[in-house]
Amino acid sequence: MHPVAGIRLGTACAGIKKPGRRDLVVVELAEGARCAAVFTRNAFCAAPVTVARHHLAAARYLLINTGNANAGTGEQGMRDALACCAALAQQVGCMPESVLPFSTGVIGESLPVQRITAGLPEACANLNETGWDDAAHGIMTTDTVPKGASRHLLIDGQAVTVTGIAKGSGMIRPDMATMLAFVATDAACDPALLQQCLNEAVAVSFNRITVDGDTSTNDACVLIATGKSALAPIASTSSDAYKLLCTAVAEVCTELAQAVIRDGEGATKLITVEVQEGGSADECALVAYAVAHSPLVKTAFFASDPNWGRILAAVGRAGLSGLDVGRITIYLDEVCIVRNGGRAPEYREELGQQVMKRDEITVCIHLGRGTHHDKVWTCDFSYDYVRINAEYRT
Amino acid sequence: MHPVAGIRLGTACAGIKKPGRRDLVVVELAEGARCAAVFTRNAFCAAPVTVARHHLAAARYLLINTGNANAGTGEQGMRDALACCAALAQQVGCMPESVLPFSTGVIGESLPVQRITAGLPEACANLNETGWDDAAHGIMTTDTVPKGASRHLLIDGQAVTVTGIAKGSGMIRPDMATMLAFVATDAACDPALLQQCLNEAVAVSFNRITVDGDTSTNDACVLIATGKSALAPIASTSSDAYKLLCTAVAEVCTELAQAVIRDGEGATKLITVEVQEGGSADECALVAYAVAHSPLVKTAFFASDPNWGRILAAVGRAGLSGLDVGRITIYLDEVCIVRNGGRAPEYREELGQQVMKRDEITVCIHLGRGTHHDKVWTCDFSYDYVRINAEYRT
Repeated sequence: MHPVAGIRLGTACAGIKKPGRRDLVVVELAEGARCAAVFTRNAFCAAPVTVARHHLAAARYLLINTGNANAGTGEQGMRDALACCAALAQQVGCMPESVLPFSTGVIGESLPVQRITAGLPEACANLNETGWDDAAHGIMTTDTVPKGASRHLLIDGQAVTVTGIAKGSGMIRPDMATMLAFVATDAACDPALLQQCLNEAVAVSFNRITVDGDTSTNDACVLIATGKSALAPIASTSSDAYKLLCTAVAEVCTELAQAVIRDGEGATKLITVEVQEGGSADECALVAYAVAHSPLVKTAFFASDPNWGRILAAVGRAGLSGLDVGRITIYLDEVCIVRNGGRAPEYREELGQQVMKRDEITVCIHLGRGTHHDKVWTCDFSYDYVRINAEYRT
Repeated sequence: MHPVAGIRLGTACAGIKKPGRRDLVVVELAEGARCAAVFTRNAFCAAPVTVARHHLAAARYLLINTGNANAGTGEQGMRDALACCAALAQQVGCMPESVLPFSTGVIGESLPVQRITAGLPEACANLNETGWDDAAHGIMTTDTVPKGASRHLLIDGQAVTVTGIAKGSGMIRPDMATMLAFVATDAACDPALLQQCLNEAVAVSFNRITVDGDTSTNDACVLIATGKSALAPIASTSSDAYKLLCTAVAEVCTELAQAVIRDGEGATKLITVEVQEGGSADECALVAYAVAHSPLVKTAFFASDPNWGRILAAVGRAGLSGLDVGRITIYLDEVCIVRNGGRAPEYREELGQQVMKRDEITVCIHLGRGTHHDKVWTCDFSYDYVRINAEYRT
């Protein structure tokens, strides 16, 4: 991953849940950096989400721990989150209100504040512009691979970098952002524009993925603009610079979101569910999520079984009023499996099975009701999903 | 199961999917019997659902096959369903419009009409008032146990019987009725009242269960009143007779619905999700289904892990506006696990684990927003759910 001027990252093994695991990450933002963020819409948002939201405007440090989500912990959870912010502030010499806390891990257990604060000196001691890889490792929980994405681009002749990391594998149906993602650029950008850029990127990336339909209590995605590149500050949404930056941010977010799905708990396949010819964007999303959440569709993908009847049943129960099933066509990659609401006349089981053996498959559903479309990413449902989630706390 | 005067049932091994399996059931209704039914709201309703709906008013025979759902089969599927009706009509000497077809099994394959019609003589030859047990076996697919329920009651001093059978194990989130259920009484009842009685019973039974959130294309539930008891015809919803009959029908339907969940694919536990103190019945149902559909909650139940954080996260993502999480209390049976939105102060992990070892568990969620309540039944999510659905077509 390309470093981003104005961003330094440090990690530590604080023994939060298990000893010897890199579980603490500190991110330092250069003075003058701007920060935008989106957070979970789960009504039970965790204490760190509440604190990070309040501290966003003055952000200078991000403090991320795994092993404990500090969610469902009531007022004690708020005190614990603030205590961690205060400890880092004292360590680095900033205001406590300049520290944004992020936590991920088990819900409902008290945050081990002592262990976190004891790990801060180590994390601060190794703050470094090249710390992105270590940080990507440091935010993992049930993830099996670290997730990062990076772009170099030229805007108005100036080199600009966009780099991001994410974690997430289960409890993934972000309603705002995935579990945790941190993206930074060295471009300079007005905070309102930066927020708009993040909103647009999240809408087509983190808000379009689902592993299990369970929206986390701790979802957060942060976009930082350090302003350290030579590029003039971006001040208008109509500028080419803004559009180029947005495209790069959306690309990084999409790559991270897809990496989350590829690493979905127990996942063996990346499945893109595309819905076309819808009467509205909302109904396209409704159909796409009905298919993407169906345990029967997901177990069929795990078994490499082109069981188009289950896809069709999921489309049928999505709740669209006046759906004319006779106009529906469904493709598995290049193979048409359903035409006019029934098995396509030219379809043969071998063709479907050839597609099903692939690691990445697109289900494309044409509704024949209009010109809108939408797209979500999901994964299959395997024995390992059950194993991972049955054993999580043991 | 108690026989119902005016109902005879016969079965046959027609070799529809596999040889030697009882897969064909004929139910004969005495002349003058009245019939009510509810069907799936899945937009892709199967051909037999369409035909059964049209033939309801003149019903004299039900023709049920397993091994093939005749769904997603287009116009050929309609012709096949009608051909089976015509064959049975010819066999027994009635109008084809008096035969209601019901199919369950794999979606998207042509109905083997020849095998079904070839099995009709055998099924008709053993039509018998005591055929309920055999019929309960004859409608099973992935079910591991036959499902029946029966009540004797006295109305106005007259003996009345209500007996029913059901099948269903996966693709269970009825939006009308479960996969297939057939209930009969010897009471006499006006058709409009009978339909109302069925609607009320289904609302609190089959429409309150979910295995996997997948609504089937073939759901149907039929209630028959033969009028063979000595009881005077029921003609008013305000009569005690109507209320007593409705109670018995609702009890039979609830027992069958719970039997479907107990036999849910891979299920090891029956879980009741109760939501109380809601601002409306709708929001109670929304919360109950969010919890009942959460794969994370369901895998925690499979693992006997009192992971209340996952329950709380599911409540939080149910989409209630203005939810004050500080007012929420959650019980696992008699053990309070969450109070005021956080872990109950008196809660200890051992108490939760004792409850989790049970085969039947009630999760009771108090929202603190009003006086409404609702209740749904579901099961846990195990390795076997994945195995059964990954291997279904192989």
